[in-house]
Amino acid sequence: MISKNDIVALIDKKGKKNLIRVEDIKKIKGIGVYNTSSLIGKGYGEIIEIMGKEYTILQPSIIDKIDTIERKAQIITPKDSAVIAFYCDVKSGDKIVEGGTGSGALTIVLAHLVQPDGKVFSYEKRRDFAEIAQKNIQKAGLERYVEIKSGDVTSKIDERNVDAVIFDIPNPWASIKNAYDALKPGGHFASYSPTTNQVENTVKELREHPFVGIKTLETLQREMIVGKGGVRPDFDMLGHTGYITFGRKILNSSFKY
Amino acid sequence: MISKNDIVALIDKKGKKNLIRVEDIKKIKGIGVYNTSSLIGKGYGEIIEIMGKEYTILQPSIIDKIDTIERKAQIITPKDSAVIAFYCDVKSGDKIVEGGTGSGALTIVLAHLVQPDGKVFSYEKRRDFAEIAQKNIQKAGLERYVEIKSGDVTSKIDERNVDAVIFDIPNPWASIKNAYDALKPGGHFASYSPTTNQVENTVKELREHPFVGIKTLETLQREMIVGKGGVRPDFDMLGHTGYITFGRKILNSSFKY
Amino acid sequence: MISKNDIVALIDKKGKKNLIRVEDIKKIKGIGVYNTSSLIGKGYGEIIEIMGKEYTILQPSIIDKIDTIERKAQIITPKDSAVIAFYCDVKSGDKIVEGGTGSGALTIVLAHLVQPDGKVFSYEKRRDFAEIAQKNIQKAGLERYVEIKSGDVTSKIDERNVDAVIFDIPNPWASIKNAYDALKPGGHFASYSPTTNQVENTVKELREHPFVGIKTLETLQREMIVGKGGVRPDFDMLGHTGYITFGRKILNSSFKY
Amino acid sequence: MISKNDIVALIDKKGKKNLIRVEDIKKIKGIGVYNTSSLIGKGYGEIIEIMGKEYTILQPSIIDKIDTIERKAQIITPKDSAVIAFYCDVKSGDKIVEGGTGSGALTIVLAHLVQPDGKVFSYEKRRDFAEIAQKNIQKAGLERYVEIKSGDVTSKIDERNVDAVIFDIPNPWASIKNAYDALKPGGHFASYSPTTNQVENTVKELREHPFVGIKTLETLQREMIVGKGGVRPDFDMLGHTGYITFGRKILNSSFKY
Repeated sequence: MISKNDIVALIDKKGKKNLIRVEDIKKIKGIGVYNTSSLIGKGYGEIIEIMGKEYTILQPSIIDKIDTIERKAQIITPKDSAVIAFYCDVKSGDKIVEGGTGSGALTIVLAHLVQPDGKVFSYEKRRDFAEIAQKNIQKAGLERYVEIKSGDVTSKIDERNVDAVIFDIPNPWASIKNAYDALKPGGHFASYSPTTNQVENTVKELREHPFVGIKTLETLQREMIVGKGGVRPDFDMLGHTGYITFGRKILNSSFKY
Repeated sequence: MISKNDIVALIDKKGKKNLIRVEDIKKIKGIGVYNTSSLIGKGYGEIIEIMGKEYTILQPSIIDKIDTIERKAQIITPKDSAVIAFYCDVKSGDKIVEGGTGSGALTIVLAHLVQPDGKVFSYEKRRDFAEIAQKNIQKAGLERYVEIKSGDVTSKIDERNVDAVIFDIPNPWASIKNAYDALKPGGHFASYSPTTNQVENTVKELREHPFVGIKTLETLQREMIVGKGGVRPDFDMLGHTGYITFGRKILNSSFKY
Repeated sequence: MISKNDIVALIDKKGKKNLIRVEDIKKIKGIGVYNTSSLIGKGYGEIIEIMGKEYTILQPSIIDKIDTIERKAQIITPKDSAVIAFYCDVKSGDKIVEGGTGSGALTIVLAHLVQPDGKVFSYEKRRDFAEIAQKNIQKAGLERYVEIKSGDVTSKIDERNVDAVIFDIPNPWASIKNAYDALKPGGHFASYSPTTNQVENTVKELREHPFVGIKTLETLQREMIVGKGGVRPDFDMLGHTGYITFGRKILNSSFKY
Repeated sequence: MISKNDIVALIDKKGKKNLIRVEDIKKIKGIGVYNTSSLIGKGYGEIIEIMGKEYTILQPSIIDKIDTIERKAQIITPKDSAVIAFYCDVKSGDKIVEGGTGSGALTIVLAHLVQPDGKVFSYEKRRDFAEIAQKNIQKAGLERYVEIKSGDVTSKIDERNVDAVIFDIPNPWASIKNAYDALKPGGHFASYSPTTNQVENTVKELREHPFVGIKTLETLQREMIVGKGGVRPDFDMLGHTGYITFGRKILNSSFKY
């Protein structure tokens, strides 16, 4: 049953998604003026009609939350978020530091996964990015799990004993020492970078500190289309997004693998 | 601080991993006879020595749990588990039906993620697979979150109102109706299949029921090597594992996207 | 030294290419009115100026010839043409049957490679495709090496003892028998298809005839960008074009590999 | 009709290939002692029996020639040879300089394509590589079209006005000037390198000279398997071989694209 203040996804017949908070009458972009309180008591999976157009009501999944964010900077895509979350073992209750909030796409993923007792501390130097990220996080109903901090992780990370430190910044190698200090023993480090030069510098710097399991992955994803003529891969595909470098903090630098 | 009955990962200098339960003296494959109770009170990230060889002690991550399973059937790899978990929005507290336990690699991923209040109901027809899976799940310390059921999801799924139904069986199309009935509204369906013929049959059958967001993905992953000569992709790579088809249950079949 | 009637490529500073025949005053699309005879006596690699804009003069390579064709149907891209030509061992002097001329992109590749003594017999049912292909072939200066035939290779192939038969048609399996009859012993068969269903039907039909070395390949190609920030793969990439199935005619059906 | 001194491919029922010269009685590795002159008068595509085992006789294609070479160094694979030959517009009559003969796999491809009037000048510093390459080239019957030169293209290239210069050496950037001097205007440059650092240095050096169309490609190829269970990509795949950088010589350095 949908209650007041729930965040729900309204999805039209073409798959276009809208996240809305169940409150009162509001103007929803692409839908129109709607009294969102009329959703109270309805169930997920039902169909409603607004101004003559049908929508399914769904509980917003992690994918729905990413699909509906407003983008300013290039976002980290689901294929990469999935790998980051998995390899950093992100789970309910985790305390995570993010360097480079951007539009907040990865922040939303992390916040979604650490609910209800965890927290994401996300550093962003640029005020315009911080603002759009905050807006996106609120729309996803995740503001309680995120603290956006104005600052640069290459200068300072305030937190200690965190479960993971995750960077999407131009010069991740300059903040490896700070990441190490912030992490708990066994904590996970990840860094997302578009170029192989960034990968090289980051890996070399990680090797200078007590990190193990240092590894860089590139993930490619292709949709398969099932049509009348048969099955084929999609003609469209992202050729590249970024490389992701991982490592795990230990206490003794004699280990390298 | 490590306590009695904890599951810990011991990792050697080459990155070889062992999961062990902290209890008493036992024989550990590849390590030797060791009094595991001597780990009590130690901290994660520390180095210990067993029979003249050094090991790091780490809290087992989801990746460590997969890396250490004993394989009988072909397992679902991390790159695919990550995508399944992400697109099915698997999270703490979820109730999940798995069709085809196999060696239990995906079962372990799901159980790890639904802790501490969720549960995975995993159906397996073959007794030998069920046994090896059970052993792997126990080794990962996840037995409380899994119920392995002897049965075939194409005949019957007992559970109702589950958050996700995930198949790794030869004929997933034959169990779409059962999956639909087991899912809660808005619940996630996923099916992993190696061939495009299986994808085609599965997608066509999904389209016959009230599922939305029907989509098939293939994920490729390549490691990048940072060596003395520079940066290059790994020469080794999995050419193919499986295609993953997703859908989400709604209550009305008029929606197709 | 450039002579009358040569086909030359004029390439501007952005890499935009034009193929023109050295004759007299003509209007060149995107360049303007130009007396092409003024190119006579110039050398390749030189820079000329037309209406205040500079162009390099180059002898048209196989890539230049493909880059400048007018497209109506989807063309076979260089990455696939290269594989077809290589695996079919296309070389100077070859006699080749093509089924499905389309816009003539592959026809031009084949004609370019069989010069000066070989010939491409290209079957096309659709008059509009045949016309645009003929125009493209002429622009590339290859009309002497191509005969476009109005017809359907699934009905009949007139030629015998050819070095290769290459299809880009919706139902290649329906013409395997005709291909077999047209090929010389040891001759190469290739078929380009977008879907896995077409691949399956084609391979199964090939296996019913005395063909060996039956093999299907998919080729993916990604550009690497060297920029100020370092090296990275291009964000844009063709996700899929087609699968290419190969086989080689022998005289005895007892061989299968 | 097969004649004395022809090179023929004998292929067994598993697809294993042998190249042999039709001469007299000889010992063929994996086949046994055989009087090769008994092939005279036979036709391609026929089946013969040697010591109770059947073989098809085929005219060796470019792929057969690569498949049968003896490897010492890592070879350039067909997927990459095809792209190099295509983008460098290699054709009958071409004069080509190769830097780094290795086992001679690319040399054989180039020699095969420039027949009967072209020539490949291949530089190799290491005597052991030169010897194995020479042996491979002879086995492929292409010795007339290749001159293996003991030397290093970074020191000197003797030839002038060549159609293409193709490198597979660790430091291609150190020989760009020599390549430029050797090429005819409009001639093609290609360089094959495993790392992105090599790509970066090569591209930057190319940009310092009058080359246009500078472009780096990576090619991935996957086989599709048609089995009883349906169609799927091969589980095995080369994750990486090398990046190929191309450029074309012009006479004026004001052009960059």
